[in-house]
Amino acid sequence: MADARWLDEREARLWQAYRDLTRDLQRAFDRQLERDAGLSGADYALLVPLAEAPDGVVRMRELGRVVGWDRSRVSHQVRRMEKRGLLTREDCADDARGWMVRLTPSGRTAIEAAAPEHVATVRRYFFDQLSEPERETLTRLLERLAGKLAADAEG
Amino acid sequence: MADARWLDEREARLWQAYRDLTRDLQRAFDRQLERDAGLSGADYALLVPLAEAPDGVVRMRELGRVVGWDRSRVSHQVRRMEKRGLLTREDCADDARGWMVRLTPSGRTAIEAAAPEHVATVRRYFFDQLSEPERETLTRLLERLAGKLAADAEG
Repeated sequence: MADARWLDEREARLWQAYRDLTRDLQRAFDRQLERDAGLSGADYALLVPLAEAPDGVVRMRELGRVVGWDRSRVSHQVRRMEKRGLLTREDCADDARGWMVRLTPSGRTAIEAAAPEHVATVRRYFFDQLSEPERETLTRLLERLAGKLAADAEG
Repeated sequence: MADARWLDEREARLWQAYRDLTRDLQRAFDRQLERDAGLSGADYALLVPLAEAPDGVVRMRELGRVVGWDRSRVSHQVRRMEKRGLLTREDCADDARGWMVRLTPSGRTAIEAAAPEHVATVRRYFFDQLSEPERETLTRLLERLAGKLAADAEG
């Protein structure tokens, strides 16, 4: 049980900025993906690791680890994308209960249509707003925060 | 059409840190909420503005704006939470096609059970990792990034 030490005014301001940024950046991505390629943010999240994998094939369990979703969310999203022809599921040779997920040609076409404007959106709302020293500072701070989470997840 | 100016190595490192942090922080929240109160991250996202509103009532459209989801996602999530008794939907007095969403007593109990450990998780993975000057720097940078998104959304 935690002591409920609520955020003070300055802490609440920083936390609000973090939440506003993550929410509005995700919303900007979602709109761009929908407009340019008819994809949702969830579609794109799965298509990226598939497009980067050798032969466009990733084990479903590994896909869940990369995007940070639980098994039922991955499985649900994969089935939806399979119906739309973006990927296929295959039996896993060395794990009878496991699945492999394979990018289809139309899945690859969709991500290739979406990617250039996605990167442009990242530049517009993130990199273009930061000087080089600010980028270095932000890299250091965000890596420290992410590192603590990763360390605890392993521990 | 954007020129596909891909991220260079240093940019990719910062962008990776941002994505790792947002993914792993959300996962830590999801696990804590599930464990302490049987809530998903999506449940919590809607319960917070309801718990803070006068009488626990918020117009469904406004709820969508606060959490940054499109109408179909809000509507789907509200129906799921209504079935579980966390909230109710009511007709909107001044908009025949609109809905009001009201927090139930068990919805309030759920969020009160989850909130102290949620704040403790925010402290553990965010504030406790940052010095006071680092918090100030981060506030300034994140507010600038969020501000650009907000300005474009209005414009």
